[in-house]
Amino acid sequence: MTSSSIAGVRVLAFDTFGTVTDWFTGISSVVQTTVPDVDAGAFARDWRRRYAPALARVESGEWGWRRLDELQTDTLHGVAKAFGVTLTDDETETLVRAWRTIPGWPDAAPGIRRLKRDFIVCALSNGSVALLTDMAKHNGFDWDVIGGSDLWHHYKPARETYCGLADLLEVEPGRVMMVATHQSDLDAARSFGLRTAFVERPLEWGPDAGPDRKDDTGSPENDIHATDLTDLAEQLGCSGQRSVSST
Amino acid sequence: MTSSSIAGVRVLAFDTFGTVTDWFTGISSVVQTTVPDVDAGAFARDWRRRYAPALARVESGEWGWRRLDELQTDTLHGVAKAFGVTLTDDETETLVRAWRTIPGWPDAAPGIRRLKRDFIVCALSNGSVALLTDMAKHNGFDWDVIGGSDLWHHYKPARETYCGLADLLEVEPGRVMMVATHQSDLDAARSFGLRTAFVERPLEWGPDAGPDRKDDTGSPENDIHATDLTDLAEQLGCSGQRSVSST
Repeated sequence: MTSSSIAGVRVLAFDTFGTVTDWFTGISSVVQTTVPDVDAGAFARDWRRRYAPALARVESGEWGWRRLDELQTDTLHGVAKAFGVTLTDDETETLVRAWRTIPGWPDAAPGIRRLKRDFIVCALSNGSVALLTDMAKHNGFDWDVIGGSDLWHHYKPARETYCGLADLLEVEPGRVMMVATHQSDLDAARSFGLRTAFVERPLEWGPDAGPDRKDDTGSPENDIHATDLTDLAEQLGCSGQRSVSST
Repeated sequence: MTSSSIAGVRVLAFDTFGTVTDWFTGISSVVQTTVPDVDAGAFARDWRRRYAPALARVESGEWGWRRLDELQTDTLHGVAKAFGVTLTDDETETLVRAWRTIPGWPDAAPGIRRLKRDFIVCALSNGSVALLTDMAKHNGFDWDVIGGSDLWHHYKPARETYCGLADLLEVEPGRVMMVATHQSDLDAARSFGLRTAFVERPLEWGPDAGPDRKDDTGSPENDIHATDLTDLAEQLGCSGQRSVSST
């Protein structure tokens, strides 16, 4: 990365599930207490695998607009069936709402706070604004702006989400840098004119995930490749440790 | 106010121009340096008086959707004409953008930070998300969610703004409390099912404003009448002084 390539960046747009939060630990732990008879890690991974295809059915037009919670409820029933269990309504709600309180990676909250001094820091996620607000309050993510999919009635990697955030912030797409641990997210962002930063999250799919990680090691086309948000802040030249919002 | 009337409140939605920021001081000071030959206070007040009628032309359908900056540019030209001055494009932009950096009232940033511990704190303003983001970063307003008029393409007191915020946060309108120093804003909010808190800002129109304040002393129908955000936090039972977002 050359410094000129990020000279105009004013906005950092963060993916949330996997990039700033550890969904595997959060979801598998709720699965373990809610559905104790299944392999919790395998259950969590299967559920997560069904996520992108469900969003794609909305973006293809096969389904009308639905919030993420509704899609997650639908895919959860499919996972439960595959694991031979039947969930009550209460168990279903507990599991679907568990995505609102998945833990942040240790570097996430302090990293966001540090980056906020020099950039407009935003969530740009397929979660709803309400879900992302709960996640932010649970983890101390001090977003400036929460870009939830319900603002645009579209899911990433649709153009409307990336360019919708730029439009909302009244900047050109080239002044927005997408930050994610999923190369497909960054490839889409770049195709619409955004800058890209890949963040390594080798444990996203759990310690024994195996081939699920195969595509997510980053691409040389990204403007930045960072090991975590502390490294991202260093590479972006954020020298300070203190947040402007702390008093 | 009885404690039962606010038992279910989860979201505080703040008006911004006047309620958390001192537009009179901010705008009149930029007018003074940009258009030194006019009475800066009178100019600022005249501009502000033309604000609500301009929004109403959008809500009536007379004009299509326009962001606040565009409306403010239009009304600014009217004020300049009334004061017998001609503004260059640069001067116009300086004045219109001055609304992004008007100062917060001294109690605002610490009050928002304290209330954030127990509530979801939101801006619910006729400014755009970008304008409100600039205002927040300039003043250290740690909003959880920024509800700008461009999210709904409607201006307060339209139903779509108040109910739009409740919908975005996935709560019933009765779980949202509108906080404002303008009774008309609170009356509208209440008519759509929101709770209301009036905040006194006797200096909103400047120290020698006179009759401009006549309607804004609050109504007995409000759930809360507060002298400032510190008093609001006390009345809402927020005992702590420390923000959850400070480390």
